[in-house]
Formats: sequence, C-alpha cells, structure tokens
Amino acid sequence: MSIGVLERSALAKTKLGLIDCDIHPAGKTPGEVMAYLPKRWREHVAEYGVRVSQPFAGAIPYPRMAPGGGGRMDAWPPTGGPPASDLAFLRAQLLDLYGIDYGMLQPLSVGSHALNQDLGAAICRAANDWQIEKWLAPEPRLRGAICVPQEDPEAALAEIDRLAGDRRFAQVALPPRTIEPHGRKRYWPIYAAAEAAGLPIGMHSAAFGAHTNSGTGWLSYYIEEHYCFAHSLQSVMTSMVMEGVFERFPGLKIVLIEGGFAWVPALAWRLDHTWSRMRSEVPQVKRPPSEYIREHFWYTTQPIEEPERPRDLLDTIRWIGADRLMFSTDYPHWDFDDPRYTFKVKLPEATERAIFAGNAKALYRLD
Amino acid sequence: MSIGVLERSALAKTKLGLIDCDIHPAGKTPGEVMAYLPKRWREHVAEYGVRVSQPFAGAIPYPRMAPGGGGRMDAWPPTGGPPASDLAFLRAQLLDLYGIDYGMLQPLSVGSHALNQDLGAAICRAANDWQIEKWLAPEPRLRGAICVPQEDPEAALAEIDRLAGDRRFAQVALPPRTIEPHGRKRYWPIYAAAEAAGLPIGMHSAAFGAHTNSGTGWLSYYIEEHYCFAHSLQSVMTSMVMEGVFERFPGLKIVLIEGGFAWVPALAWRLDHTWSRMRSEVPQVKRPPSEYIREHFWYTTQPIEEPERPRDLLDTIRWIGADRLMFSTDYPHWDFDDPRYTFKVKLPEATERAIFAGNAKALYRLD
Repeated sequence: MSIGVLERSALAKTKLGLIDCDIHPAGKTPGEVMAYLPKRWREHVAEYGVRVSQPFAGAIPYPRMAPGGGGRMDAWPPTGGPPASDLAFLRAQLLDLYGIDYGMLQPLSVGSHALNQDLGAAICRAANDWQIEKWLAPEPRLRGAICVPQEDPEAALAEIDRLAGDRRFAQVALPPRTIEPHGRKRYWPIYAAAEAAGLPIGMHSAAFGAHTNSGTGWLSYYIEEHYCFAHSLQSVMTSMVMEGVFERFPGLKIVLIEGGFAWVPALAWRLDHTWSRMRSEVPQVKRPPSEYIREHFWYTTQPIEEPERPRDLLDTIRWIGADRLMFSTDYPHWDFDDPRYTFKVKLPEATERAIFAGNAKALYRLD
Repeated sequence: MSIGVLERSALAKTKLGLIDCDIHPAGKTPGEVMAYLPKRWREHVAEYGVRVSQPFAGAIPYPRMAPGGGGRMDAWPPTGGPPASDLAFLRAQLLDLYGIDYGMLQPLSVGSHALNQDLGAAICRAANDWQIEKWLAPEPRLRGAICVPQEDPEAALAEIDRLAGDRRFAQVALPPRTIEPHGRKRYWPIYAAAEAAGLPIGMHSAAFGAHTNSGTGWLSYYIEEHYCFAHSLQSVMTSMVMEGVFERFPGLKIVLIEGGFAWVPALAWRLDHTWSRMRSEVPQVKRPPSEYIREHFWYTTQPIEEPERPRDLLDTIRWIGADRLMFSTDYPHWDFDDPRYTFKVKLPEATERAIFAGNAKALYRLD
C-alpha cells in the first residue's frame, strides 16, 4: 500500500490543478454518523431502525456488497473499517497520490429518504455535523454538501439556514429520486434558499428513492439500475425546465453528478422541438428549453460516456459547454475514474484545465 | 315520473327531519363546470385536456358507464343531460320526494387530481363558483363543499380563504387518495385553515387518486375497487392519528363519506394494541389511537354494511358513537340508499333522529 515518491509525482497534475467532484465518505462503523443524533433519535434508531421506501429496504443496492458496498478492492483501509472511512488513508490513496487540490464530499445521507420525516431531518443534521467534525475541520482540501430532508421543505430550510454561512459546505445535496418531480412547487423553497445563499444544488444519482429509476417498475439487474442513473437525471432536468423553475430562480445552479452528460444534447433537441409546437401548455417556459439547460446545469465526468470514435465526445462537450463539465473520481467506488485515463481523446489544453479544476473552482467559489 | 301527493307524504320523514350527506351534482354537459374557468385555462383544456394520474386517464371508473357514469337508470332528467344535472328534477326526485331538509353536495372535482397543478387550482375554483351559481344560490336546502387542489397547499389555502366565510359551504372537500399519506406535514396548512374556519373536512371515497386503493397494485375489477373505498379511508385514519395531526389540531373534524364504518372498531382495537407496545416510535401520539378516532371522525351511512344478524350493526354504532353516523343516499348513483330501507334493524328513536338529521345538523351548523 505504500506509494513511492516517484510514482506520486508522476501522477500529480499540480501543473493544471485537480479537483475531484465526487468522493463518498463513509463511517468506520454503521453507527458512526448516528452517534451525532440526539438521544431521542439514537434510541429510536436502535429500536426501530431507519425505514425507507425502497422495496427491499436495508438491501445495499450495489454489487460487490459487504459493508462499504461497491468499494474498490484496494480501498479498504489497513486500519479497518470500509473504504473511505479513514481520513489518513483517503489522503494517501486519493488526495496526495493524485495531487488533488479540492475534493467534494457526496455523503448521500439516508436522511433524505427516511419515511419518518422527523427522523430524516435529524439524520441529515447528524450527517452534516459528522462531515464537519470528521472531514472538513481536519482536512481543508475537502468540502461538504449540506444534506437536507427535501420532502419536508420547512426542515430542509432550517438546515440550509444553519450551514449556508459555513464556507466549508460548497453545495446543497438533493437526491434525484424524490416523491414528486423536481419542478413541483413543494421543492421551490429549497431552490429559493440555495439561490439566496449562492450555493449550487448537487444531485448525485441515487440508488435509493421514492420511486424506481425506470418508467415501468423495479428493475431486475444492477446493470439496468446503473444505466437508469441517467434516466432519473433526465427527469430532473425536464421537470425543472417545464415547471418554470429557472424563470423563477434565474440564479439557480444544478450539478448532475454520476449520471453522464452525453444524453444532454439529444434531450435538449427533443424538448426544443416539442416546446416549439406545444409551448401554449407551459406558458411559464419563456425560452427554448435548451437555453435553460445550457445556463443552469453542470455535470461531473464519472462515469464518462465512451463513444466508439473518441473524438465524438468533443462535440458533446462543445454542446453542453466546456465550462460545464467537472472532473470526478467517484472514490472509493468500484467504477473509480483515474484522472490520467478518464479521457480517451486529447482535449484542448484550456478545456482540460477547465474540466480538471477551473470549472469547479469557479462554481464552488474555491479560493 | 310524476309523484303522487299520497306517496310523497308517505315517504316524507318530516317528523324526524332528514339530511342527506352525499349528493353528487353533475353538469348538463361535460363543459359546464369548465365554462367557469378563465379564458387562459378554457383554451388550455380545449387543447390539452385535463391529465390525471390514473393509469387509464379519461376512463370512467364506474360501471354502467355512459355520461353520468354509475347513475341510477331512473335518474336521467327528462330535460336531458346526465343524472343530477337538473336542479328541478333533483328537487322532485330527491329533496321533495323524501322531504329532505338539507342536502350536502359532493362535487368530487377533477381539479384535486390534475397533474398540472395550476390548472387543478383553477378547476377547483371553477367547481366552487359553479356550485354557488347552479345549486347553492337557487336552492337553500343544498350546501356546498369547497373543492381544493390539496397537493398545492398554498393554492388550497387561497381557495379556503376565499369561501370559508360563505355559510353556503359546509365543509372542505379533500380526496382520500393523495400523493402522500394524509398525516404528512404537507397537508397540515389545510387542516389549520379548516380548523380555524370551523369547517369539517369531508373525505369522499374517490375513484381517482395518485395511487391505487389497494396495497399491491391496480385492481382488475370494479368489485375490488368498491371494496377498497374502505381500505383507503383506513389509511387516512391511521396516518392522521399516527402523525399526530389531532394533537396539533384538536378542533379538526373529519367526515368519511361512502366508505362504511363497520371496520372502524377492529382497526381501532388493532391500533391501540400496537400503540401500547410501540408508542415510543410515535411520541407525538399521546393517547390510545381509539380516543382520537372517537373524537375526530364522522361517517356517512351509504353504502351501509349489512351483518348477517342485523342487530350486530347496533354494537358497531355504539362503538363509533351514535352521534357520529350521518344518513346519506349517494344520489344519483346506482347504489342509492332509500332512507326507508337503509337500516335492516330497528334503531332506538333518539339514535334514528340523530343519524337521519341531528348529527349532520350539529356538525355542519345547519340552523
């Protein structure tokens, strides 16, 4: 597990800068985050657990199960605990090895999906306190995401208010599989608060949710579920545009994480076409949908689409905007992207700088 | 269709008084209510229709289809239009024939289920204006129900505010098949407004809803759907009790319409039992669930359960409270209950008075 000095410097991309927009921190034990709950809820969880709406609640929806589900085999810390549960080892294996300037935590709290909504709010609060104490305070290269119980907007607002002034948090985390489509008014108070605080909303593809990712029912295979990450993000995008969210919140910024981006141009073309014929149904949409998409959405790279002709990816990047794509590893998950091999095509240097660091730096105000 | 004077007086229950708590008014044409929409939404409906979440949107979920779906064969007005679309004929066939002192309208607006929520709010408003102009203004024996777009509580509140001062409206209409269970906080603003206005909330079993009535999936047969009316009302009751709604709104009154009542004692016993063992999960529930149920719920009679030993019904009525049951016909639907034959058992006279008129008079402040 020791990493030689030579290898390290060979990997480091310090010349260009490197920001990883998708790191999943874990607890050493399943109870580590829950220890931040007040006594009333700790006792509740001990007695009743945390119920979620998934059909097989409690099942880890990733392959290569075991605690730390879906982790890279080499990411298990020598000190024990699951992958990404040990700060020193995460520093060595990720931040130092690749010369990462900043890493964005994606804690994916179960608090967002708890059916007991008061418990959900308490878990989100605990997850945020845990981020501060375990990760953000000791490691200034890391940035947190404010977990919120989005189905109870009043409680979500309280949590955003509590933490929006803490610059160690770079975004508000909202899962893409909510009870209602994201454009519905129930979520607007969250958008208003994020916009007012100048925080982007990070939507990380979720293995949990109120409904299945698919349009038809619960899927048989993980391979289907993995594809459908893109599916659920397409629904997010369409609903937010069509319900007029961006007319109401012109400063709102949405980051779609771990759902790819090559599907974006085709979706936008289709929406522009239908809007041109049926815009009277949605008078709140004042401009072609593609304009809102280009202005309000950002994307992370992993898992990147790999066209048969690698250079086709450049056309996609051109369409969504070279300023909209941000590098991510998904550490410590099995489908980790190494920054040296992420792109199968040579990017123009300015584009490479932007994707590997500049875009995230600007979006998340990392300076 | 002419009704003789002798027959009329034989039917009249004027001695005891008679209030019908479930009458379904209809439009002469499908567009009659929609004509009350503002121009922007009339044009929208003409072009796009009204989309709802039912799997086969647009299908009438009742048997004996045809316009006015599920109507009594003899209820088609001689002047044209579907059953219960003609005030003069409704007076003759229902109000005058049975000597009904007051009749409570249950308009079951599609506005509550429209997926386009702004359209839904507009349709609810139109349905309320239509009730006033077509039914409440010309016929003082009728009382309206304020239709609200419950999934958009802000719009629902605006509609309650607009009409709560109009004593021709006796209750707020809330469908029992909502996007989330009724105890969830999203609906609490509606409960607060109804409580403040002193209006009961009428929940009429609905053939439409955001989810199926069953706990498993969409049902094959109407006979199953009809049974499940009770199923969905049981969910309403359980959720409202367990989320602590009645601790927060001690003056809230809920009327369960067309879902029976013989299931209530067994459900309450079961809830009391589980609460006694697991009350720590729901600290907001301070007292045995049966106490909230007895205090906050009312029931209409039709379709009444018919035990093999008719007198068993008396035990049920005793449990729920003789002051909690209110007569209803469900006019003009096929399963109409004639007040002369509703009960297969002789009721004590005070109970009969209460069920046929006194309870509704007190609850709806009809004086």
